[in-house]
Amino acid sequence: MKSYREELFFETSTRRQFINITPQVEAALKKSGVREGLCLVNPMHITASVYINDDESGLLADYEAFLERLVPQQGTYRHNLTGEDNGDAHIKRQVMGREVVVAITNGALDFGTWEQIFYAEFDGRRRKRVLVKIIGE
Amino acid sequence: MKSYREELFFETSTRRQFINITPQVEAALKKSGVREGLCLVNPMHITASVYINDDESGLLADYEAFLERLVPQQGTYRHNLTGEDNGDAHIKRQVMGREVVVAITNGALDFGTWEQIFYAEFDGRRRKRVLVKIIGE
Amino acid sequence: MKSYREELFFETSTRRQFINITPQVEAALKKSGVREGLCLVNPMHITASVYINDDESGLLADYEAFLERLVPQQGTYRHNLTGEDNGDAHIKRQVMGREVVVAITNGALDFGTWEQIFYAEFDGRRRKRVLVKIIGE
Repeated sequence: MKSYREELFFETSTRRQFINITPQVEAALKKSGVREGLCLVNPMHITASVYINDDESGLLADYEAFLERLVPQQGTYRHNLTGEDNGDAHIKRQVMGREVVVAITNGALDFGTWEQIFYAEFDGRRRKRVLVKIIGE
Repeated sequence: MKSYREELFFETSTRRQFINITPQVEAALKKSGVREGLCLVNPMHITASVYINDDESGLLADYEAFLERLVPQQGTYRHNLTGEDNGDAHIKRQVMGREVVVAITNGALDFGTWEQIFYAEFDGRRRKRVLVKIIGE
Repeated sequence: MKSYREELFFETSTRRQFINITPQVEAALKKSGVREGLCLVNPMHITASVYINDDESGLLADYEAFLERLVPQQGTYRHNLTGEDNGDAHIKRQVMGREVVVAITNGALDFGTWEQIFYAEFDGRRRKRVLVKIIGE
């Protein structure tokens, strides 16, 4: 069994942002040399998500509007009594999910036509890490 | 390390539908010959979910009602400006999740009493694929 | 390839409760002897979640309030016509997710600073099981 680990880094200019990170994950997979296995991708932070969906700007605006309606950044959160202002971001991340696990087949991410891996930042404007862990052979 | 890959196909007669796909995943596991490992099951499409919960018709109606109340199909979505009418489906799929990872122990899905794998379709009436990827030994 | 399996047991005194189970998962990892691989943690029940986020009491209260506002326990659920009173719990578990998959690197859970594994119970006051499955080498 082979294993490979890489950290990706992102720093968004706005509080919330969606970034298509598929090319970076594919580059990590290539470096790993794994042909058959599984690829885990997750933020190492708890106010961000990694998820899979379409790279369409309208959809990204819909996600932003849906999450902000459901969990407004300006809402009242006990977590913010600690001095933080990101209570909403911890909840948004749960709704969108933490991680994705992707099949690796013949040395490639085993994806349908429209599947793209996104990093969703809900409390940005600082450097954040995403972990790519690959196992297989 | 062994690996095994299979695609399952579904075409629902209605826009939204929940299908218990546990028997098909168990059949794939049997074909794989894997006794200890992990089994990933995910739609290869971005308007559907694979999730694990109870096979009880009232619960399935509750999921349908909850998701439609939270993200109405007739709502306003920027994604639909592309000509699509499935903006809601992309959001519903995020709420229910994309994939499941299931432990394989002694050649079987390592499940509690009530765990069943479901394919949740949110934009059906066309042929869709579900990927089963198994690794282990 | 090595594999390891352990069940953890929890019985909460209240219907809903959040328990930090990171120490138990780390203990299981140590017993497994795995240095590089993946660790799956999931409830074997369908009214509970395993998720990763911060261990901060205000945040746990925010999750509880958010979920109860979104899916009130006293709401109307068809599932409850079966005689159950946990229709809400099946939905809350979907919003928070079922499982986590964690990278194992150098014999440890490969975590960012604040990542902690939680068991979220939505229908407690009875003995429940959590599965830890580890594969790697």
